[in-house]
Amino acid sequence: MGGLAFRLLLLPFLAPVATTAVNPALRALASLNLQIFPTFQPEEANNYSIYYFDQKIDHFGFYNTKTFKQRYLISDKYWKTYDGVILFYTGNEGDITWFSNHTGFMWDVAEKLKALLVFAEHRYYGESLPFGEDSFKDSKHLNFLTSEQALADFAELIRHLKRTVPGADGQPVIAIGGSYGGVLAAWFRMKYPHLVVGALAASAPIWQFEELTPCGVFMKIVTEDFKKGGTKCSESILRSWGAINRLSNTGSGLPWLTRAFHLCSNLNSEDIQRLKDWLSETWVNLAMVNYPYPANFLKPLPSWPVKTCTEIILPFCTNGVDDMFEARSWDLDKYSDDCYKQWGVRPRPSWVTTLYGGKDIRSHSNIIFSNGDLDPWSGGGVTEDLSDTLVAVNIPDGAHHLDLRPSTETDPPSLQLARSVELRHMKQWVSDFYGNYRKQP
Amino acid sequence: MGGLAFRLLLLPFLAPVATTAVNPALRALASLNLQIFPTFQPEEANNYSIYYFDQKIDHFGFYNTKTFKQRYLISDKYWKTYDGVILFYTGNEGDITWFSNHTGFMWDVAEKLKALLVFAEHRYYGESLPFGEDSFKDSKHLNFLTSEQALADFAELIRHLKRTVPGADGQPVIAIGGSYGGVLAAWFRMKYPHLVVGALAASAPIWQFEELTPCGVFMKIVTEDFKKGGTKCSESILRSWGAINRLSNTGSGLPWLTRAFHLCSNLNSEDIQRLKDWLSETWVNLAMVNYPYPANFLKPLPSWPVKTCTEIILPFCTNGVDDMFEARSWDLDKYSDDCYKQWGVRPRPSWVTTLYGGKDIRSHSNIIFSNGDLDPWSGGGVTEDLSDTLVAVNIPDGAHHLDLRPSTETDPPSLQLARSVELRHMKQWVSDFYGNYRKQP
Repeated sequence: MGGLAFRLLLLPFLAPVATTAVNPALRALASLNLQIFPTFQPEEANNYSIYYFDQKIDHFGFYNTKTFKQRYLISDKYWKTYDGVILFYTGNEGDITWFSNHTGFMWDVAEKLKALLVFAEHRYYGESLPFGEDSFKDSKHLNFLTSEQALADFAELIRHLKRTVPGADGQPVIAIGGSYGGVLAAWFRMKYPHLVVGALAASAPIWQFEELTPCGVFMKIVTEDFKKGGTKCSESILRSWGAINRLSNTGSGLPWLTRAFHLCSNLNSEDIQRLKDWLSETWVNLAMVNYPYPANFLKPLPSWPVKTCTEIILPFCTNGVDDMFEARSWDLDKYSDDCYKQWGVRPRPSWVTTLYGGKDIRSHSNIIFSNGDLDPWSGGGVTEDLSDTLVAVNIPDGAHHLDLRPSTETDPPSLQLARSVELRHMKQWVSDFYGNYRKQP
Repeated sequence: MGGLAFRLLLLPFLAPVATTAVNPALRALASLNLQIFPTFQPEEANNYSIYYFDQKIDHFGFYNTKTFKQRYLISDKYWKTYDGVILFYTGNEGDITWFSNHTGFMWDVAEKLKALLVFAEHRYYGESLPFGEDSFKDSKHLNFLTSEQALADFAELIRHLKRTVPGADGQPVIAIGGSYGGVLAAWFRMKYPHLVVGALAASAPIWQFEELTPCGVFMKIVTEDFKKGGTKCSESILRSWGAINRLSNTGSGLPWLTRAFHLCSNLNSEDIQRLKDWLSETWVNLAMVNYPYPANFLKPLPSWPVKTCTEIILPFCTNGVDDMFEARSWDLDKYSDDCYKQWGVRPRPSWVTTLYGGKDIRSHSNIIFSNGDLDPWSGGGVTEDLSDTLVAVNIPDGAHHLDLRPSTETDPPSLQLARSVELRHMKQWVSDFYGNYRKQP
């Protein structure tokens, strides 16, 4: 789930691939998918109904009156209309059926919370395409792929459900999401607190923006994971880059590398950077999916449809000292120039902070930020309580939003504890809601 | 200030004028302006510097990269960078110099609060025209005239000031606005609580939307004002409509009405509705500007530039029983059809509630809602405390955002008390800010 779940966040790294050197380890994430063994899914995870809701393509203007069909899934098997709750998955960058099937946590807690499960697909993904097959044609059509529009979709959908599903109107809603979906869950609670009583934001790097987090933290955590993995493991990887560079300069080196990596065609010297990118990508993914059970994650995705320079700008860098990668600095100006050359647009690196508050979010409430210590994305996450109701749940040996995965017999106690803390908070929000709701005249 | 200050809120009533019968008393407000005697302005009220800031025309998409110059005014005469505050006027529908000159309250409290005063012009008004003289050409150019874009302008401007004005970065900001500007101030605190520590929302009818307030309340309050004004005053007005209708059906009636109202050209029967509209408008305005001192408010505005069917839909109705006007129902479907015919767009009456929360705003904090009991807009305002920090300040004999006007010797004690309560809250927010700010490492 990890690799897939961050493709959208990695958009900015994908854009200037052809023209500039952007951290390849991060760019490369976009070409991976994680398929978890289906035996780990709760049986009911496929037991949903599929619906479609007409959404405005542009929520923030009135000139464009066109709509598209947003897909969403519903499961009401354990729902109780008297004292239940609506768990609303804020879909991220992918087919929503996939997230539904792989967010075992929601299916696991449905009965305990008497919950209606709703999985809302993110616009421009799965079947929820604003302009059909033209959706990815150019930046004019991609213009409506922003977090603000996605949150507005969720808001309109929740109001639609409250109006049309008998029993839904008087129920509290909790937003749940992992990775970029976790970022959306947190932002949704911040911007639409009248629609959701709280949010569970799993492995949500809401601070991996602007200068909120040093750009080197991500790759440093990857490196630390490898240091834990075995003696001199990270040192070997660090040395490998130089070795590959040297081999690529010798006549016998390129064929040797071709054989060593079992490549289909012969490497030439222009391929070397891509080889290193592919290796970097693998190390990053291994760190992210450091799950306590086997996971097959090397299934290539269909070609990545969306490459543009938008609001989601994550500064990353490496220095080869604090981490095990070749040194690469973060150069916003160059990045911006490349975006402009390629797409005619410039990224707005400070907009996300302006809109969502950066580190200054203490006036909000009822958000659980969960993070796995092994997950490199935890570097940009909230790992300390900000208030009584903005709480951090840290999972000592956890990988990328491990807590949202289905429970298994091999789950370590720290993970079980994290989930029980999350459940307790959610129950409290529900109970507070009904306490206030029933007090009203 | 009253009439002018609600032109934007009245946009929806302006649109279908030609094709449908929309409450004329409200539509008519748009043709009035209020010019208050300049002797009531604090002397410093003209003592500002003028600046311009490049704003994105579209904050919520990346395809349109164009910018426009937003005008803003600054006065730093009493500002202290150590323990001061930034008072930020969230400009409403008009030239910002006019609001600066007429919001005497801000100039009056500047010294007490050691405040930097900032007045930000609302896009599409004054000099802040996104497309220059083409700004009002058609709905394509008007597309970016929304409250969301206006709030985003304010957010970007505040971040710009914090980055560029020495001393501003470590200062709290308070949003202040009256009428539609008050609505914006409240919404700004709700959506951008990381940028403003609180908001003073004067005469802000944030609940005059969808079905949050019965559609007849506004005109009922107008009527009550007239009942207070004198014996049988409202009854006479109520009877006047029938009398005018009867006169318009007689041969001598139309010339009589022409003479009685000192009209320049002879009335014909098609003019009768417009005459009644003009009268209704006058009664509404008299209720709104029921100030304790003379005010000249019959100066016509330049032709109203913006007429469209947008997100700001205020349902109004009359029945001639609870109010003194001819009965007129609120018909959203017809209204929507008329918008569609005229502009090719349909209004979204529920969007404002979806976005800003309607009556469910208790999770927010630090907003003062002030209302004058005589002001018909108080019907859609917050007139009871919602929490310890969402407080209502009611001014028993107050008209439309009387508290934002400059203090005068004739101010009644209730008004003086209201202003002192507002000042106390603002001081508390500032003190809380510095308490937290200086505690930080």
